[in-house]
Amino acid sequence: MDDPGGRRHEAGSGLLVDLYELTMGESYLAEGMADREATFSLFFRTLPPGWGYALAAGLEEGLRYLAELRFSDEDLAFLERTGKFSARFLRRLSSFRFSGNVRALPEGTPVFPEEPLLEVSGPLLEAQLAETMLLNLVHLQTLIASKASRAVDAAAGRTLVDFSLRRTHGPDAGLAAARASYLAGFDATSNVLAGQRCAIPIAGTMAHSYIESFESETEAFRAFMRVYPDDAVLLVDTYDTPEGVRRAVTVARELEVSGHRLRGVRLDSGDVGPLSRVARELLDDAGFHDAVVFVSGGLDEREIARLVGEGAPIGGFGVGTKMGVSADAPFLDVAYKLVEIDGRPVLKLSTGKASLPGRKEVWRMREGSVASHDVLGLYGGECEGEPLLLEVMRAGHVVWNEPLGATRERARRERESLPPSLRALDAAPYEVRVGPELAALRDRLTEGMRS
Amino acid sequence: MDDPGGRRHEAGSGLLVDLYELTMGESYLAEGMADREATFSLFFRTLPPGWGYALAAGLEEGLRYLAELRFSDEDLAFLERTGKFSARFLRRLSSFRFSGNVRALPEGTPVFPEEPLLEVSGPLLEAQLAETMLLNLVHLQTLIASKASRAVDAAAGRTLVDFSLRRTHGPDAGLAAARASYLAGFDATSNVLAGQRCAIPIAGTMAHSYIESFESETEAFRAFMRVYPDDAVLLVDTYDTPEGVRRAVTVARELEVSGHRLRGVRLDSGDVGPLSRVARELLDDAGFHDAVVFVSGGLDEREIARLVGEGAPIGGFGVGTKMGVSADAPFLDVAYKLVEIDGRPVLKLSTGKASLPGRKEVWRMREGSVASHDVLGLYGGECEGEPLLLEVMRAGHVVWNEPLGATRERARRERESLPPSLRALDAAPYEVRVGPELAALRDRLTEGMRS
Repeated sequence: MDDPGGRRHEAGSGLLVDLYELTMGESYLAEGMADREATFSLFFRTLPPGWGYALAAGLEEGLRYLAELRFSDEDLAFLERTGKFSARFLRRLSSFRFSGNVRALPEGTPVFPEEPLLEVSGPLLEAQLAETMLLNLVHLQTLIASKASRAVDAAAGRTLVDFSLRRTHGPDAGLAAARASYLAGFDATSNVLAGQRCAIPIAGTMAHSYIESFESETEAFRAFMRVYPDDAVLLVDTYDTPEGVRRAVTVARELEVSGHRLRGVRLDSGDVGPLSRVARELLDDAGFHDAVVFVSGGLDEREIARLVGEGAPIGGFGVGTKMGVSADAPFLDVAYKLVEIDGRPVLKLSTGKASLPGRKEVWRMREGSVASHDVLGLYGGECEGEPLLLEVMRAGHVVWNEPLGATRERARRERESLPPSLRALDAAPYEVRVGPELAALRDRLTEGMRS
Repeated sequence: MDDPGGRRHEAGSGLLVDLYELTMGESYLAEGMADREATFSLFFRTLPPGWGYALAAGLEEGLRYLAELRFSDEDLAFLERTGKFSARFLRRLSSFRFSGNVRALPEGTPVFPEEPLLEVSGPLLEAQLAETMLLNLVHLQTLIASKASRAVDAAAGRTLVDFSLRRTHGPDAGLAAARASYLAGFDATSNVLAGQRCAIPIAGTMAHSYIESFESETEAFRAFMRVYPDDAVLLVDTYDTPEGVRRAVTVARELEVSGHRLRGVRLDSGDVGPLSRVARELLDDAGFHDAVVFVSGGLDEREIARLVGEGAPIGGFGVGTKMGVSADAPFLDVAYKLVEIDGRPVLKLSTGKASLPGRKEVWRMREGSVASHDVLGLYGGECEGEPLLLEVMRAGHVVWNEPLGATRERARRERESLPPSLRALDAAPYEVRVGPELAALRDRLTEGMRS
């Protein structure tokens, strides 16, 4: 068995699937259908209220999952014990390697309802087994990158730091949130492991417990500035915020003589808009014009926009839980749907969940540099505009990757190419036109199914 | 370096922390404070709207994290490269082992705002470093177990299966959701890895893609029943639900002659209340009284309660995304607060985030078997009623564990001991009285801080 080193979780275990992927696989093998060529499309149906777009993310992790997907002897022994699988099927799993192809939107691309984030083509058994974890991995990073991208617009140039690790849904989610928010334009994360793994700048201040560990707040500030004289953002709200700022100023003055400068103060509670003005004034009055007022505590893009809108003199935001769990929209209705088998386009008609048949392409139309609308059509069709899906995996090998910095740059560039109405916190909708061939195919198949 | 085998994620890496845990640690060491005896309390401040209680969970994983927390050579090399840490501090981390004590509510215990889920006592440096991941791990399972427990009451005895893996926030969260929902009373999960790891029953049906892979729905049903003649729950909504049920009946009749019985049908879209009646009637008319009508798609405890309330003839529910991400309440405001250092009780006064000082105990008062109210007091104090916190870790060693089945039984028993008004989906509040000694200590310290 391969044991790909450095993977951060056991997504490579073949058991990390919904049971039905395996029982369907058993049937596909029994029916001689396991190697029929199939294409699945991964997309979402709707955007959360107010959102104008999503930002595609999670592809790198999804491709790594596909490349590393294996069934260990232990996995196979467990499956055998369930009594649900034939020896023949388990033998097939024992040599399982994903051998298919993937076309996908590069990470950092704005994406809209019904557009494929990726399409997986390969033997039916393989492409089906990939469903559960591809959805899981691509969904989470797309969700967080999208929400973080809104926060980046709301912050209008101010520093944003991911503080979400303590309340993300598990450690994997903490790493995914750090990566996805950085990709979307955040400046740093408090998550040290994400700093190591993804080369994201790491940042942090201090906890209330630190302040309380000392006999007095002033002593705590002095102690911290002794070890980090040029890198101290002092937490000033443990007892009384204005008093805390005054103490920070006192301690900063003591260190000024040695040539050290206070980096800033952090407010983590109370009405931070007015408090930030008080802090700014106290710092300015003491000559600490460079010291930043950093704010945290229950922030999301709407609260950031409110604070920025009222002109609060805040230099940076620590954004935690509400971004890390995407609190107002904790999921997207992503789906992974069969669209073609053996060259035959298929669809389902389930109420409210009808799907579009066939392999697809997305063309983005621009007026000047600004995106005007997309066309969703059949792959191989023709259309003006920029086709967005790239070949990223060929015959089970990843053929596309880029440094995270380049992805972050794409996200920035593509966000700026969106119409301003789409970037508003309560966004106008964007038009995705279904191309004429795709529409005709859908109608023809629907008619055929119903009759 | 130890490399504890079989851990399911890298929670054991010391880098999986917020940066400030480490920079505070650097300062504690520099100040000679690293080994001062400290106690931190992990609790939440409020319950989500409508929730009457939370169900404590995640302790096993939290304790495993503490026991396995290490800094590898690679971790230390990264920390050194950040330039933020002294050689002395890194040496200390290189031999890091958590050596403290933990008292905690056993998993499956109903818990209320301000009550400690656990208290960590040990050297300040160690107890501080544990903050980020203890919060992360205990928070997630407590959140999901609590929501799942509400669904168990709503389902009133019908089967509940966790279908959340595809949309949980990462693979870790999928495992946590499977474990926490089972602990709370769910019957099974679709997550095969959770089945292997936690010995949770696994279950599943089939995807729409399976149906679409065949030339006809009937052919798909036949194929599935060929491999699973006694264990087939056929998905009937791909094209038209009543027609799908009729086809399922047709295929089931073909197999009846060989002594096989249809296990059931699944509805995954449309207005499932009325559709379940149609399905039930068609099954009954054909003599398949034992076949279950299983429902999935966008379910949560309120939708389950609505369907049960209107008498829909549904035998089981597949509960996915909305439970797995706790969609209406995707986080609890958990905190990990210093409450005592060197025997000195401490608190913070931050607006809206004031904390209660000192090590604590929770006593549950009962009238007969029904919980009437709790008393939150100082540890070592006296009170009638049942003290709830147990010693679970001593000097870095886990001294308490139980099989998941026993935890599940505690959850069932304790849920049944709650007043019915607390178990309603829009619950009445439960009283947690602050004991007189704790109240006096809080008032005295607050007075002292403010003066």
